[in-house]
Amino acid sequence: MIKEKKTKLLKETPLGFVDRTEKELLIRDTIISNIKEVMVKFGFQYLETPSFEYSDSIGKFLPDKERPDEGVFSFKDEKNWLSLRYDLTAPLARYVAKNYLEIPRPFKRYQLGTVWRNEKPGPGRYREFLQFDADFIGTKNLQADAELCILISEILESCGLSENDYTIKISSRKFAEDLFKEIKIDSEKKRAIILRALDKIDRLGWSEVKKILGKGREDQSGDFTKGAGLEEKQINFIEKRINDKNTKSKDIQEIIKIFEAYNFKNYNFDPSVIRGLEYYTGPIFEVNLNFEVKNSKGKNIQFGSIGGGGRYDNLVSNFGNLDCPATGISIGIDRLVYALMQKKEFDIKMIKPVIICLFDKKNFKKYFDILKILRKSNISGEIYSGEGNLKKQMQYANKINSPAVIMYGENEIKSGKATLRNLKTGEEISTEVENLCNEIKKILWKST
Amino acid sequence: MIKEKKTKLLKETPLGFVDRTEKELLIRDTIISNIKEVMVKFGFQYLETPSFEYSDSIGKFLPDKERPDEGVFSFKDEKNWLSLRYDLTAPLARYVAKNYLEIPRPFKRYQLGTVWRNEKPGPGRYREFLQFDADFIGTKNLQADAELCILISEILESCGLSENDYTIKISSRKFAEDLFKEIKIDSEKKRAIILRALDKIDRLGWSEVKKILGKGREDQSGDFTKGAGLEEKQINFIEKRINDKNTKSKDIQEIIKIFEAYNFKNYNFDPSVIRGLEYYTGPIFEVNLNFEVKNSKGKNIQFGSIGGGGRYDNLVSNFGNLDCPATGISIGIDRLVYALMQKKEFDIKMIKPVIICLFDKKNFKKYFDILKILRKSNISGEIYSGEGNLKKQMQYANKINSPAVIMYGENEIKSGKATLRNLKTGEEISTEVENLCNEIKKILWKST
Repeated sequence: MIKEKKTKLLKETPLGFVDRTEKELLIRDTIISNIKEVMVKFGFQYLETPSFEYSDSIGKFLPDKERPDEGVFSFKDEKNWLSLRYDLTAPLARYVAKNYLEIPRPFKRYQLGTVWRNEKPGPGRYREFLQFDADFIGTKNLQADAELCILISEILESCGLSENDYTIKISSRKFAEDLFKEIKIDSEKKRAIILRALDKIDRLGWSEVKKILGKGREDQSGDFTKGAGLEEKQINFIEKRINDKNTKSKDIQEIIKIFEAYNFKNYNFDPSVIRGLEYYTGPIFEVNLNFEVKNSKGKNIQFGSIGGGGRYDNLVSNFGNLDCPATGISIGIDRLVYALMQKKEFDIKMIKPVIICLFDKKNFKKYFDILKILRKSNISGEIYSGEGNLKKQMQYANKINSPAVIMYGENEIKSGKATLRNLKTGEEISTEVENLCNEIKKILWKST
Repeated sequence: MIKEKKTKLLKETPLGFVDRTEKELLIRDTIISNIKEVMVKFGFQYLETPSFEYSDSIGKFLPDKERPDEGVFSFKDEKNWLSLRYDLTAPLARYVAKNYLEIPRPFKRYQLGTVWRNEKPGPGRYREFLQFDADFIGTKNLQADAELCILISEILESCGLSENDYTIKISSRKFAEDLFKEIKIDSEKKRAIILRALDKIDRLGWSEVKKILGKGREDQSGDFTKGAGLEEKQINFIEKRINDKNTKSKDIQEIIKIFEAYNFKNYNFDPSVIRGLEYYTGPIFEVNLNFEVKNSKGKNIQFGSIGGGGRYDNLVSNFGNLDCPATGISIGIDRLVYALMQKKEFDIKMIKPVIICLFDKKNFKKYFDILKILRKSNISGEIYSGEGNLKKQMQYANKINSPAVIMYGENEIKSGKATLRNLKTGEEISTEVENLCNEIKKILWKST
């Protein structure tokens, strides 16, 4: 069915998608379990919406409007267009609209789930990622916004980061709105282009963003993006304002008061924080790591934010005249895992099985008896399940980083004592089957 | 952007997809954590392949060949066709081919992941489900097949099921091959139709399957499926053979010997177990629950299997001339959760926050001080983050099943004592802030 010639292509994951192996997955599990613990402590409900939504329901709120149809993975089924969710906020708005009368007010929910973006893949740019979201629905109280920042900080510290390792930047969409008034930009479309451009300062630098605000910009691949066509005077005004950390909008002032009441200090008011999404209406947040992160080639990279969010008071009202102010925050879990793997030696136990060598199938019962003893003592173990001789079995045990092998061949069975080899030291001892667990535990203790 | 008229449609999840709420998710988390514990004990590696694969890589091994293009969600990106995985086995074969020289032999891996089927949705028929898979790659040793059955039984018992609650049915594809020879069916296509038909005996009953083996069958919706066109003599022969539990193929005999050595008894040889997938080459398994399961309307339903698997010695060789025998098993986690929720009261703690009432924002610091005391004692708590008066706050606390509320208004602050109301009993006490945790713990203890 599959032609030999294609072999090389077929073995690969599609561009922008990756296989993930044990160490990364175990670290991710630890982070997820920390998150769940914090969310329970903060009184959030656990919810899961499906991967697919009707394309109409989740609209098109993606920042990269330059390729609007390609931003999401969409499929036509027998009757309708379905899209894979590109974030967890739009599906939440749909869920809230659907369950509008049943949910508590405020409705505090969290979700962990994969999201997909059909973007141009590139180095470190994936098309599938695991996201964590926490949202307050149905309240204008800015305490909610403040608590989102506090809870993210609690999550990051539960993962072993210290205050110096991260900063939560805050700003407000109100600030951008004031700015638009001051430089007299009315056009919705132009406003969107400007927001998206300003959101890229971290990644591209001000000099490149300036081009997008003006006539346009050619990227490294030669693609040209048409600019917003602002005048130099307007661009200069924007530059002055995003560097002015003293003029704070009223919502930011109130949030800062709440931070002070909590004694939360790890925030930073930064008007250059913009967030590209159009649906924000009030305070916006960005979570940044302050330590160096290396790429796969060992080079330090500008890692950018690992998450962010903001207030979106009008999103739910798209589903009808539902009055439902809301605010939320997201963390990109894969990016967080990537950074944390470099920051700190996670205390991840990679537990590998003790191997019981397979000599003769007629002695299966005896091997199983040993295996049962190990498993009863919660020791990971297996009878070699391949087809190789003793040498191959040793190679296998070493390959999988097994701590020890148990040999119970004809001679051992006669003498009633099994041979236990410590694979870290090469030491071998002879011991009664009943005593194996004690000896193995000594080996496991030493190696941790 | 979204038209009012469409409102009703847009609030729904697409057909075949569902929202999942807290209780189900917490039970699922418990099952997943049990699975992970068993997998470590059995010496399996944790792996994750992406949701998408190149369509060519994962081929088309779905049983429902009648709608070959509609069985998977496929998508054309700039250059290639991508498909959402419909199982975890085909992507594993791709992973093994890609990492052929690096993996240990045998390679024992497990994966938990969502799979998608673009099938006609119906009651209880979903298009997205969470699956658990465990596989042995690179070994013909039938001990691997036997161990898969043993580990599934260990997982089910870790979830609180007893031996009587489930049976693992075993059979072999060799049996079907012998059968085809005996009734002289050479055509690959015809064989596939027969296998798929026989796989439906559980769901449709023999009398309906007989029609598919013969001229064809009209289903309840009026759709006609063309049959395999077998003669009555051939059909009768098939009927006799699938009810003959005495004639066992050699592979089954060997597996049963291993079961006996392990003292594993909870299996059942059943030649009517067929498994629809074409790629199986040897022993096949099916995991069945023996207790009654009700549908959402409270009616007992034929629940069918919650999983199964088998040996697929030739799948990896599709990626080139790679000699890679393999065997694996899957469990449908959502189905297992659904059944277990009915079987047994899971000891799921739905922890809900104690609510600190919000009287005056100027006292935020005092509320936060209480909140910090609670959270330090690992008590879930929150300051009411909505905008309602005290009555609304009480309604909110009751709505979310909060165990207690704390009131610390002007009078309480003056007296130095907070009011704590137990929401289960309505009792109120007045106590020092420092003593709140002790009193709350008493309430939490009583309610569990």
